[in-house]
Amino acid sequence: MKLMRRPTGLLAEGDLVLSEAAVPELKEGEALAKVKYLSMDPTMRGWMAADTYMPAVKIGEVMRSLGLAEIVESKHAQYKKGDKIVGLTGLQEYVVVDAAPRAGWNKIPSIPFVSDALFLGALGMTGLTAYFGMMEVAKPQKGETLVVSAAAGATGSIAGQIGKIQGCRVVGIAGTDEKCQWITEELGFDAAVNYKHADWKEKLAAATPNGVDINFENVGGEVMEAVLGRMNLHGRVVLCGFISGYTKAEPARMNMGILIVKRLKVKGFLVFDYASRFTEAATELGKWKMMGKLKDRQTVVEGLEKAPEAINMLFKGENIGKLLVKIL
Amino acid sequence: MKLMRRPTGLLAEGDLVLSEAAVPELKEGEALAKVKYLSMDPTMRGWMAADTYMPAVKIGEVMRSLGLAEIVESKHAQYKKGDKIVGLTGLQEYVVVDAAPRAGWNKIPSIPFVSDALFLGALGMTGLTAYFGMMEVAKPQKGETLVVSAAAGATGSIAGQIGKIQGCRVVGIAGTDEKCQWITEELGFDAAVNYKHADWKEKLAAATPNGVDINFENVGGEVMEAVLGRMNLHGRVVLCGFISGYTKAEPARMNMGILIVKRLKVKGFLVFDYASRFTEAATELGKWKMMGKLKDRQTVVEGLEKAPEAINMLFKGENIGKLLVKIL
Repeated sequence: MKLMRRPTGLLAEGDLVLSEAAVPELKEGEALAKVKYLSMDPTMRGWMAADTYMPAVKIGEVMRSLGLAEIVESKHAQYKKGDKIVGLTGLQEYVVVDAAPRAGWNKIPSIPFVSDALFLGALGMTGLTAYFGMMEVAKPQKGETLVVSAAAGATGSIAGQIGKIQGCRVVGIAGTDEKCQWITEELGFDAAVNYKHADWKEKLAAATPNGVDINFENVGGEVMEAVLGRMNLHGRVVLCGFISGYTKAEPARMNMGILIVKRLKVKGFLVFDYASRFTEAATELGKWKMMGKLKDRQTVVEGLEKAPEAINMLFKGENIGKLLVKIL
Repeated sequence: MKLMRRPTGLLAEGDLVLSEAAVPELKEGEALAKVKYLSMDPTMRGWMAADTYMPAVKIGEVMRSLGLAEIVESKHAQYKKGDKIVGLTGLQEYVVVDAAPRAGWNKIPSIPFVSDALFLGALGMTGLTAYFGMMEVAKPQKGETLVVSAAAGATGSIAGQIGKIQGCRVVGIAGTDEKCQWITEELGFDAAVNYKHADWKEKLAAATPNGVDINFENVGGEVMEAVLGRMNLHGRVVLCGFISGYTKAEPARMNMGILIVKRLKVKGFLVFDYASRFTEAATELGKWKMMGKLKDRQTVVEGLEKAPEAINMLFKGENIGKLLVKIL
């Protein structure tokens, strides 16, 4: 599925277009993998639009995405048939893993009771994002109040649970009552606030009686401004994403005066900066998962042709937990 | 001079109004001081408008300001006639220092070749703001590139010079060619850019060939966005003030996406948080001053009745260095 046009707003028909190509003949040192799951992530919308922390996908190129694939044929020393790998598969059914050593591919282990798809979610990029954002940037202390926005999303749901593991009071902000119920009843958040209710700012205030020490921010705009209004002096703001702005021509702009008045510490981060520590972090996340301290959920859409719709679901708030496209 | 109305935009006639009152009889434990200089600071505009890090000045109250005063009569154990003090005098000609021990008043020493007014500038609140913002928040390293906005102002001019003392390449942004000339030729900044020239962003880029490691921000809005566009990955942004927004109904709003893309560290700070270390910092600044490493300049307006005009000069960019009102 190729990027044929840079989207404006949500993806429209013709932005991403399916095309067919023959599965290439393998050269010596290459392996062929069949893609099983594609990871749908808000950052993909950025990759379509412009150069950011990575170059934009070029018009006419296969759209960049993370995915999980299984080796079906191998002339590669490191992979044998049946091995499963995670990396930048792109939105396609088959991918050739070439001979050049590259950082992008990770072979995933077979672990009892751990589904492969988990390596795209809680143990994958979004889980790692939550891990490093919390453990390395936020550095939560026992008893602090943490507010997570987009709290039922793939990253927010893990970030909030890490906050609980670290002994914080955790309040999530989400856009449906079902999501709010999931994060409190299943994931153990102390409170959840549905920002689509008219009185949500009062509810946020009531849920944070001691103010807010840490804001793990995934949304931006009005949601973030409301949380900053509840911050304690010298609080920390971890900037993970601004999903409210990704489909807008003009991103949400912030009044930054409150950062001075409250002497806040704000830090933007990207998970890729911690690449050398991914194995260590995934091991820690895996331990929490096996101890039952970390729960996850997937929303699965079937069929490569549904990828554009799936990407839009992220911005319409239609997924709970990790959003995946399953290749049939 | 009392606050009679909360200003909208620049101060207008009738916002601050002069009134006369008898100089009060001193009670036991009090001292009477004649105000000699008033410090004109952008933050005063905030004090007129709304509660921020301090409660707003109430309507009908003497307008809050820092000032330098000389004791003319004393029934106070700590002060004798002729002592000079700095503190929140307010916009008035006489002030009563009462018996209650309060943090607000500091007796200033007599130092050869150091003018009293320096204790409202380079050795006063604005100098201390520059000191703590640089030494405690920015923590500059030798060889880094520092960009200071409002670089010819009372705080910016000191912040930039501290950057030079610490071995940085220092680039200042200011709004007149005269200011740019002063900070490069007199203060030793490596380069200056006049943001009122159409090609200023290209000039900023040319002046920061290795990107920007530290942004000491006094302005906000478009100026800040241009500097952020030059920041290196993992750079630090020290939020000292947003003067571009103080007279606007809607403050300048920022696109914060770049904070993530560049993984920036942003910290708002207020000098008052470092109150316990003011003497230590003023001593250090005083040493630099006596060694000739720190230069300063004052713009002096004469007459208490000129205070409202003087405050507006701050927002029109009409002062160079510290702006003072001299009481005749």
